[in-house]
Amino acid sequence: MYLKNTWYVACMPDELEGKPLGRQVCGEKIVFFRGPDGQVAAVEDFCPHRGAPLSLGFMRDGHLVCGYHGLTIGGDGRCASMPGLRIDGVSAIRRVPEIRRFPVIERYGFVWVWTGDVELADPGKLHHLAWAEDANWAYGGGLYHVNCDYRLMIDNLMDLTHETYVHASSIGQPEIEDAAPTTRVDGDHVITSRFMENIKPPPFWATALRGNGLADDVPCDRWQICRFTPPSHVMIDVGVAHAGHGGFDADPQHRAGSIVVDFITPESDTSIWYFWGMARNFKPEDTELTARIREGQAKIFSEDLEILEAQQRNLLANPGRKILNLNIDAGGVRSRRILERLLEDEQRERAALRETQETSDA
Amino acid sequence: MYLKNTWYVACMPDELEGKPLGRQVCGEKIVFFRGPDGQVAAVEDFCPHRGAPLSLGFMRDGHLVCGYHGLTIGGDGRCASMPGLRIDGVSAIRRVPEIRRFPVIERYGFVWVWTGDVELADPGKLHHLAWAEDANWAYGGGLYHVNCDYRLMIDNLMDLTHETYVHASSIGQPEIEDAAPTTRVDGDHVITSRFMENIKPPPFWATALRGNGLADDVPCDRWQICRFTPPSHVMIDVGVAHAGHGGFDADPQHRAGSIVVDFITPESDTSIWYFWGMARNFKPEDTELTARIREGQAKIFSEDLEILEAQQRNLLANPGRKILNLNIDAGGVRSRRILERLLEDEQRERAALRETQETSDA
Amino acid sequence: MYLKNTWYVACMPDELEGKPLGRQVCGEKIVFFRGPDGQVAAVEDFCPHRGAPLSLGFMRDGHLVCGYHGLTIGGDGRCASMPGLRIDGVSAIRRVPEIRRFPVIERYGFVWVWTGDVELADPGKLHHLAWAEDANWAYGGGLYHVNCDYRLMIDNLMDLTHETYVHASSIGQPEIEDAAPTTRVDGDHVITSRFMENIKPPPFWATALRGNGLADDVPCDRWQICRFTPPSHVMIDVGVAHAGHGGFDADPQHRAGSIVVDFITPESDTSIWYFWGMARNFKPEDTELTARIREGQAKIFSEDLEILEAQQRNLLANPGRKILNLNIDAGGVRSRRILERLLEDEQRERAALRETQETSDA
Repeated sequence: MYLKNTWYVACMPDELEGKPLGRQVCGEKIVFFRGPDGQVAAVEDFCPHRGAPLSLGFMRDGHLVCGYHGLTIGGDGRCASMPGLRIDGVSAIRRVPEIRRFPVIERYGFVWVWTGDVELADPGKLHHLAWAEDANWAYGGGLYHVNCDYRLMIDNLMDLTHETYVHASSIGQPEIEDAAPTTRVDGDHVITSRFMENIKPPPFWATALRGNGLADDVPCDRWQICRFTPPSHVMIDVGVAHAGHGGFDADPQHRAGSIVVDFITPESDTSIWYFWGMARNFKPEDTELTARIREGQAKIFSEDLEILEAQQRNLLANPGRKILNLNIDAGGVRSRRILERLLEDEQRERAALRETQETSDA
Repeated sequence: MYLKNTWYVACMPDELEGKPLGRQVCGEKIVFFRGPDGQVAAVEDFCPHRGAPLSLGFMRDGHLVCGYHGLTIGGDGRCASMPGLRIDGVSAIRRVPEIRRFPVIERYGFVWVWTGDVELADPGKLHHLAWAEDANWAYGGGLYHVNCDYRLMIDNLMDLTHETYVHASSIGQPEIEDAAPTTRVDGDHVITSRFMENIKPPPFWATALRGNGLADDVPCDRWQICRFTPPSHVMIDVGVAHAGHGGFDADPQHRAGSIVVDFITPESDTSIWYFWGMARNFKPEDTELTARIREGQAKIFSEDLEILEAQQRNLLANPGRKILNLNIDAGGVRSRRILERLLEDEQRERAALRETQETSDA
Repeated sequence: MYLKNTWYVACMPDELEGKPLGRQVCGEKIVFFRGPDGQVAAVEDFCPHRGAPLSLGFMRDGHLVCGYHGLTIGGDGRCASMPGLRIDGVSAIRRVPEIRRFPVIERYGFVWVWTGDVELADPGKLHHLAWAEDANWAYGGGLYHVNCDYRLMIDNLMDLTHETYVHASSIGQPEIEDAAPTTRVDGDHVITSRFMENIKPPPFWATALRGNGLADDVPCDRWQICRFTPPSHVMIDVGVAHAGHGGFDADPQHRAGSIVVDFITPESDTSIWYFWGMARNFKPEDTELTARIREGQAKIFSEDLEILEAQQRNLLANPGRKILNLNIDAGGVRSRRILERLLEDEQRERAALRETQETSDA
């Protein structure tokens, strides 16, 4: 149960360097590749000749070549050329059935794909990322494959209470539990905020303070502002400031903060591609710092995988069993409600589209 | 098709040291842990908060804490505490649904669990193990997970003809086949006995004779007395005595004997937890001997696993196909008949219980 | 959808040395062994005693002994002996049900099995291999297990266009694509031929030329003549000759050629045992050359496995989706048509057999 008429992150540009990439998104097996014009294209990962996955092929002169018999496919899903392509002795390129193409956009350092109705694919609906186009910001991140429903990951990110338990050695601290979160809904957005005052910064943030040339042994104010945006993006303002300087609103010389970036792309009903990263607006030119933060985050975020996959297995083994929605869960609960409404909207929208098409066909 | 209203061995106490243990018994996913009073408790392995397995959690001050968001569960299946546990701002501990608890008993060096009707759990029905409470006896054993129906393991243990083939290098010997076994039924018990006279002791028993300070190069009488007790316990008197001294009834100075202990706990219809071991009443204080015997037995008993799992796969691939019941199979055949009768009894018993409950509810 | 009333290669004789071999052929789990007379036998891999796979047993005095309790089975599927085999105290050998036997023939260096109707098993229908009985020829080969429908492997071998892509570093070359293949049908046989003239020999053939004492740096004529024979044999005449000497028909001093031998045995609907090899009529006594060719071929033929298994998965994920039949595919397409016709014949033949049996039973 995921939205289809929307843009999901499909891959990172460096995954397409010199070779095609096969990846399932929203149940669709897709091959991504960089075409002759340098534009990213996406088509079904199914060679119209004999059904081999095109992702086992290779790039030649900017064309995707099937690795079995050499059929060449363009970003429009049409066969571009094939040596020996003849049916009954006649060139047969036109008789090769088109394969499905998927709209893609490369922006903000990601490749985005639309697996729903092509007619409705609107680049204007792409989630805007201001920091990704601002030279004062730097970004580093990675990708995990996780065997869980994408909504379990949204729950996870909209309720950071789990940091105390799952990430005890890095970003967790008992004070998180003592600070009650507040959740508000703003249109299709959900914002869950938690503020902790006069606390000792946990290891990750102590390091960040030192990295910013700030004392790490003084009381701090800490914030976590989780922002859910459909279909499944969660951006989290996180950070600490020396106590009494305004917290989240403190001047840069008193604070260390960043945005945790999470794009959750459904692969199937019970598996996801999880693009995680961190955007920061301090020392953006320091690539070594970017690498170090990325490494630390990779370790911390990997700690969630075992419990999410075990939770998923437990839920599958107990179909229909209700789980509890506590105050701390409000962020996830509200996000799911928005998704349910949007899924209903999408069904109506798709039904209307089908009707229009049938009328125009008639 | 296994009994539910009975006690099965669930685990060994050292598996619970300092951490909870998740284990499926009779199709139920259960987490075992040692509560604040040192008593072993068992509840569903499903956190009532968000469904994560509680067995991924940890023990704190004798309480089981969920490793995801910190909900604490008691041995009664009730939430004991949870930081930030509020629904609409109000403490919500009472609104956390109870999870199922399972009666457990720790006795004889094992943790026993009852997965059937709680109302019928009767500690008096626990299988009595005299040797386990007698200082003249020592016990050593281990645990194997085997992908087979628990009844295939009962068959295996009630027909030791297979020793000649499966355990040729340790306890098997051709004379086993020449000595016809006799089987008798005594209430719910089945006893299959086999006696071999004037034989050469096989390697395992030659070692045991030497361990007892007895000659291992003289003719011996050997015995195997397999005792099946429901639901799936098989205790086997095994040993050798110097020939002509009375065999099984020989005086201690002429014999080396012990009890092979087998508790077979269904995990699912086609998998088991197999607790095996050996109890002996000679040199009980010699812990090094215990370890050595345990190591030898571990090797021998591991030899059964491949053939049992292959047999199970073959039977699953040939549903309904009849297999043969020879004289040597009588022990297993009779044990299965008792189980069938007890399963019918249990169904009647459970149906009666349901009726009583409905009447009292009305 | 494979033929059953036909001979398939089941194994190579050295797989039966000193021990039984369990192998599934056409959906049947079979155990192959060499009986007391040295003749190969094949029976169900299911012990009639307790259902253990007989292939886990061992050979004793030319008899197959079950590794669980020692039941002995003959090549006729009947119990030959069993220690302690008694039912109610009476010898029970006659009461052991027969298990199914499968006709087998050992010939041409292979063991062949018939998994269809025993009454119709006709040794005269065995595929004749002239080179296998001719001292001027040598053979070397191997076996791969591949998770694909046997027809995908026939397609692969009847269209060598894929060499350019899958085997680019050994036998592939762009000229293959430029040379259009021709396909003709001769009764139940399909022959697809491709001739390339005045080409540079690819690495594999350059080595073969040198091995024959011929120059490898001169223009050559190359041929590929693929011959499909039901049920799933593909023999391919391959080779090169110095240009202008007649190609395939050139005198031995100008050519290096051989026969690629492919026996494809269905294991299930989507998996095969693929027996591959090469027969050559030069230097047949050079066993080191045989080993070297075998090693090279093993590497080349292993390159097909990944793409075939990926193709199979893609086709299973897209049931009913049509793939394209180009001119280059004609060999496979025609072979499939013959198989479809023969499958219909077989169904009629089996229905007639059933009717005859019912009449004679009445």
